[in-house]
Amino acid sequence: MLHLVGLGLADETDITVRGLEIVKKAERVYLEAYTSILLVDKAKLEAFYGRPVIEADRELVESGSDDILAGADQKDVVFLVVGDPFGATTHTDLVLRARELGIETRVVPNASIMSGIGCTGLQLYNFGQTVSMVFFTETWKPSSFYDRVKENVQMGLHTLVLLDIKVKEQSLENLARGRRIFEPPRYMTVAQCAAQMLETEEERKEGVYGPDSLAVGAARVGAPDQKMVVGTLQELSQVEMGAPLHSLVLLGRRTHDLERDYIRTYAVDPATFDASYQKGYGHSL
Amino acid sequence: MLHLVGLGLADETDITVRGLEIVKKAERVYLEAYTSILLVDKAKLEAFYGRPVIEADRELVESGSDDILAGADQKDVVFLVVGDPFGATTHTDLVLRARELGIETRVVPNASIMSGIGCTGLQLYNFGQTVSMVFFTETWKPSSFYDRVKENVQMGLHTLVLLDIKVKEQSLENLARGRRIFEPPRYMTVAQCAAQMLETEEERKEGVYGPDSLAVGAARVGAPDQKMVVGTLQELSQVEMGAPLHSLVLLGRRTHDLERDYIRTYAVDPATFDASYQKGYGHSL
Repeated sequence: MLHLVGLGLADETDITVRGLEIVKKAERVYLEAYTSILLVDKAKLEAFYGRPVIEADRELVESGSDDILAGADQKDVVFLVVGDPFGATTHTDLVLRARELGIETRVVPNASIMSGIGCTGLQLYNFGQTVSMVFFTETWKPSSFYDRVKENVQMGLHTLVLLDIKVKEQSLENLARGRRIFEPPRYMTVAQCAAQMLETEEERKEGVYGPDSLAVGAARVGAPDQKMVVGTLQELSQVEMGAPLHSLVLLGRRTHDLERDYIRTYAVDPATFDASYQKGYGHSL
Repeated sequence: MLHLVGLGLADETDITVRGLEIVKKAERVYLEAYTSILLVDKAKLEAFYGRPVIEADRELVESGSDDILAGADQKDVVFLVVGDPFGATTHTDLVLRARELGIETRVVPNASIMSGIGCTGLQLYNFGQTVSMVFFTETWKPSSFYDRVKENVQMGLHTLVLLDIKVKEQSLENLARGRRIFEPPRYMTVAQCAAQMLETEEERKEGVYGPDSLAVGAARVGAPDQKMVVGTLQELSQVEMGAPLHSLVLLGRRTHDLERDYIRTYAVDPATFDASYQKGYGHSL
């Protein structure tokens, strides 16, 4: 059987008791290590599980899935995924391939950032579509996120923005020369995300949001040192939130009083928060 | 400190290792037992934790929160929540009260139905707002959910419908006479939800969806015997999915081919699925 086991959001102790039992008894254990990260490394997981863990990079998962699935019709193979196996990054392709091979699959769910973001105090009911923000380059600043944010904003809903991470990326030069040398990992910060959002608004000029729009920045959700900050996009574009991973929520117009009371505690500046809030939020429709 | 600890979705082994450690060491442990349920009872949890657990009903949480928080400035008090503490039902009011009393709070996230529903193979990115469906009575058939579903449908997004549960409810007569006698618990089924949705459409007649609209029914998400079924609302209104809890997802027009391939396996009838799908789904806009 193939077991897709969620690891949760922070460290090795965020696995569920059920998940841990399966990991300990399995024939092989893979760790999906390219779409998200825990705040601890593979060695820490191995020590905690008392067994080796095989790192599965994008190449292995996308081209070598039959290696992962080898023998899984007879024995138990575990595929560990940070967060929930069907959360921000889904592994439906691996499950579909397992089905083709007649291999049963089972899922052990866990906290995902898609629901964990509720710890901001914003109601998950009031969220629209989730979007992703990639690192802009000089020549590539994709703004498809903007269209989806626009739909959410029009309905007054919050938007969760998931921030890009780059692990095991090769420079163009190393890629061209076939050298398996990887760049240092990069994790987008709340400040970078807010700045890119403002850059896109300046480009597109559809007034979806602006420097005074309120947003919540969240860092290390689920970890003991998780941090939240609320402020205008202008303020957040200069905020420092420490180690990864970061996420951002653009506040919807329909924000409820209880949500406001909860997040106000984290305001960069309560005065600008109140001023911005009064201008554009708290409407029931 | 007040610890809000998520229990996940199925049984006692869905708590995280971190959560379990906190539960074992805490001074008092409460279980929020009125907005959702695990598939096991309190005695099973107590045996697993090796300690007593205090059941917290709506009355205690809403009026007796200071009893829950008593001494939490000095000792550790745990408040267990099925799913994630900030998932479908949030406990922000308890946290706000703790803040007023100067009590620190910490959250241990876990799987919530809001993200666990990803196990259907539907991408969480493609979901709009989540709605709740309550049990209709002869005289009370609230249709506010319909307006939110309409917004999602117009954007082509999926809608997660969370289904009502009734635990520790009193009959009007017992309530009037002050008798603490409770009705047997009731859990809405996928079939009841689909039927109520169709009833509301017949009432409102705005063409948001119809008997041929496709939806996914999910039962016992996260449990080893979780079950999924996909079909038209007409088909689902007659489907039998076994023990609670159930959820339903109304499919959005923007459904991706990969999502279709994944869910088609669960079709009540692949022929009606294909026919309905071809008529109204798989459009990118």
